[in-house]
Amino acid sequence: MDFEEKTMKTEKIYEGKMLNLRIDTVELPDKKYSKREIVEHPGAVAIVALTNQNEIVLVKQYRKAVERELLEIPAGKLEIGEEPKETAIRELKEETGYTSNKLEYLLEFYTSPGFSNEKIYLFLANELIEGQAEPEKDEYIELVKVKLEDLIDMIDKGEIIDSKTIIGAMVARDYLSNK
Amino acid sequence: MDFEEKTMKTEKIYEGKMLNLRIDTVELPDKKYSKREIVEHPGAVAIVALTNQNEIVLVKQYRKAVERELLEIPAGKLEIGEEPKETAIRELKEETGYTSNKLEYLLEFYTSPGFSNEKIYLFLANELIEGQAEPEKDEYIELVKVKLEDLIDMIDKGEIIDSKTIIGAMVARDYLSNK
Repeated sequence: MDFEEKTMKTEKIYEGKMLNLRIDTVELPDKKYSKREIVEHPGAVAIVALTNQNEIVLVKQYRKAVERELLEIPAGKLEIGEEPKETAIRELKEETGYTSNKLEYLLEFYTSPGFSNEKIYLFLANELIEGQAEPEKDEYIELVKVKLEDLIDMIDKGEIIDSKTIIGAMVARDYLSNK
Repeated sequence: MDFEEKTMKTEKIYEGKMLNLRIDTVELPDKKYSKREIVEHPGAVAIVALTNQNEIVLVKQYRKAVERELLEIPAGKLEIGEEPKETAIRELKEETGYTSNKLEYLLEFYTSPGFSNEKIYLFLANELIEGQAEPEKDEYIELVKVKLEDLIDMIDKGEIIDSKTIIGAMVARDYLSNK
């Protein structure tokens, strides 16, 4: 079946530094019209960084949208013209100080396709070399390192509640156990 | 460390049927100001529905935000005053026709906490009874049933790229294998 929704009209509501908002008027398969509110996002990367001590590097930061601190894997937005792998190298260095001699692509996913086009490219960073973090001026980050099995436990206990971190932990576990 | 960002000003940009957009001016730990673009969302549920033939019920639908059809587990927004479990019962019936005699809470997560407060409550629906779907008038849905192990394969192959569906499959696999 073909359920494609043709765009009949697009209204730009907001263009910002991190996201844009637009409303599309679409034609449904029955020829009736409906509206779709869409958050445009440049896409992002997230990195499961595995230290030589077999620990995953997490970043703890305050997330204004949810009004609390969250523990997440390092991540960041794609800049214009940047390949996801370049973004992963840059963001890992900025947020954690680590560089990786072996960065592997795992998979990609949409975080919330019901209203946003945000896609996250997930990488596994091995063979890490420690260095100095270079956070952006409005980023306050604390590093936390946990064993992969403890990270899985923290998901079960509801202590890790960020989608990309849950996916990163579970996909990395499968990947590493199949190697 | 306390990285809390105090709200100094809030500007409402848009109030819609599915989401709102606001910009908060926040005070950072160093007392400088920054802006946070925030998409307000009522929250949602997603359901891993397991048939008596041990298949997971997926819904195929066109997602305007990403301009393609996606295969996802059934899901839907919380209505005002609704408990997540009620939403799960309602959305499962609306989208798939199934009712469940055993609905279990699995976990909850934020889909994209960098810019949105959308939280998804994930449930496992067992002991399903078939019935007639009741989709909303702008929803066009096709049901697809796959074995859990095939769903995991489809994730590995990049055929399932929706975050809640990836999390649902992996968490349900762990949960069912530990029973």
